[in-house]
Amino acid sequence: MTKVAIIGYGNIGRYALEAVKAASDMECVGIVRRSAAGEQPAELAGLEIVDHASKLSVKPDAAILATPTRSVEKYALECLALGISTADSFDIHGQIWDLRETLDKAAKEHGAVSVISAGWDPGSDSVVRTLLQACAPRGLTYTNFGPGMSMGHTVAVKAIEGVEAALSMTIPLGTSIHRRMVYVQLKEGYLLEDVAARIKADPYFANDETHVTAVPDVNAVIDMGHGVNLTRKGVSGETPNQLFEFNMKINNPALTGQVLVGAVRAALRQRPGAYTLPEIPVMDLLEGDRETLIRQLV
Amino acid sequence: MTKVAIIGYGNIGRYALEAVKAASDMECVGIVRRSAAGEQPAELAGLEIVDHASKLSVKPDAAILATPTRSVEKYALECLALGISTADSFDIHGQIWDLRETLDKAAKEHGAVSVISAGWDPGSDSVVRTLLQACAPRGLTYTNFGPGMSMGHTVAVKAIEGVEAALSMTIPLGTSIHRRMVYVQLKEGYLLEDVAARIKADPYFANDETHVTAVPDVNAVIDMGHGVNLTRKGVSGETPNQLFEFNMKINNPALTGQVLVGAVRAALRQRPGAYTLPEIPVMDLLEGDRETLIRQLV
Repeated sequence: MTKVAIIGYGNIGRYALEAVKAASDMECVGIVRRSAAGEQPAELAGLEIVDHASKLSVKPDAAILATPTRSVEKYALECLALGISTADSFDIHGQIWDLRETLDKAAKEHGAVSVISAGWDPGSDSVVRTLLQACAPRGLTYTNFGPGMSMGHTVAVKAIEGVEAALSMTIPLGTSIHRRMVYVQLKEGYLLEDVAARIKADPYFANDETHVTAVPDVNAVIDMGHGVNLTRKGVSGETPNQLFEFNMKINNPALTGQVLVGAVRAALRQRPGAYTLPEIPVMDLLEGDRETLIRQLV
Repeated sequence: MTKVAIIGYGNIGRYALEAVKAASDMECVGIVRRSAAGEQPAELAGLEIVDHASKLSVKPDAAILATPTRSVEKYALECLALGISTADSFDIHGQIWDLRETLDKAAKEHGAVSVISAGWDPGSDSVVRTLLQACAPRGLTYTNFGPGMSMGHTVAVKAIEGVEAALSMTIPLGTSIHRRMVYVQLKEGYLLEDVAARIKADPYFANDETHVTAVPDVNAVIDMGHGVNLTRKGVSGETPNQLFEFNMKINNPALTGQVLVGAVRAALRQRPGAYTLPEIPVMDLLEGDRETLIRQLV
């Protein structure tokens, strides 16, 4: 039985806990969250809840980092220093290599493993992109997201003056071009026109086709469904026009939580260091014995 | 520069050679084929051609086995005994585990690596199936093949009395159910009705909806295009209705040749032993430096 802790208990932490409970080879030995002292959600009854990984009375083999993406490095370093392996879903594409370098050093120093950026994008999509590059080394891959809620863009809108609450939907237009459909609840005394202009000028939106709509209640239009359409057209050897397509329609945090559980399992099967998902054998994400899996899946 | 030999020079060998030539980190040091003495295809000019791997004047690091599937084990064992790593596209699903056991032992004995069943199915599709199992551990995956030529079924038809030449097309009907569209050139004096009855009674066809049509020239209806539609509907954690789909439309031997080139590259990056494709980091299939690949693909 692998002993797993969950660090952070927002949306992803909640779904990761469900995925840990659904796995027959893991048990959750505790939740680490800042509000460890306050009242806790019903589903955490019976679990140890502390405010720092070092305070867990059972030392976990690995931790799922379900913290905001910008806190991942801090919590990963804390865990690795305690010899606890980690899996996270760090999602700032331009900073993945740097995070890998930092955590690789720390992981090796402490004989632990860190699997980084292991959600669905980056994460399972990255495995598909890498596989398709191997199938047709020359060519173009496009990752088209949505329709679905963009967490990053939604947070950006919420920070804009005059916005009470917001939802930014990503709509795929093909060839990695996206439309932004933004739904805002306005603060009293603000005009949609002004708020919309500010949103469209924000760096998050300035380069995309963006439409802003006022709604009375943002909660009424939020759902956690998301999607991907990933295509590659390329050349195998000297043969052009090899066509590949990967689609999914999924509950966003549920898939992230599940991939994190696979990543934490895989972490314990790698040599010390930090890895992105395409650097790990996909088979290592699965529970079950190797012969059965190979007979069933290969 | 990795030195690669190609064993067998039929359809797959030809495309594998193109893919080796297109890779900037590999060179082909020779072709091993039974008809090494006879006249050779123009594209082999300048390459050493011998009838046994031990006769190559430059020892390859690895060999691509482009032989008939039933000869894979024999040629793999010969190569491994010489300390040459191998990649093959062995495709009899029920016998993959046994082949892995046999080659694992031989590979470890000789400090070499064998990557087995590394075409597209088994092969790249196996990686997708394994990944989707990790994304939604409970659920159903269906692999739907075609429309495309089935090599195994075509060979089976050719062995039937009254058949001069044949083509068996696989048509996907969904949920892994397939129709067989068989095109036969009849031998003189045979009736379509009788030949069709024999085909439908053959174990290869007895369980599938099968239609047999007589054509004057089978070559006029053959093309090397193939396709896959692979679906999974399953549960991430406790969340149902997670929907995944992988599609491709490809030149069959070209993709096989390309995946084999990736597999041979990956072979030289694993510890001694035998591996199926999902047991290898997908990243290892690619040429190029790790940082660049991670920045681009993850």
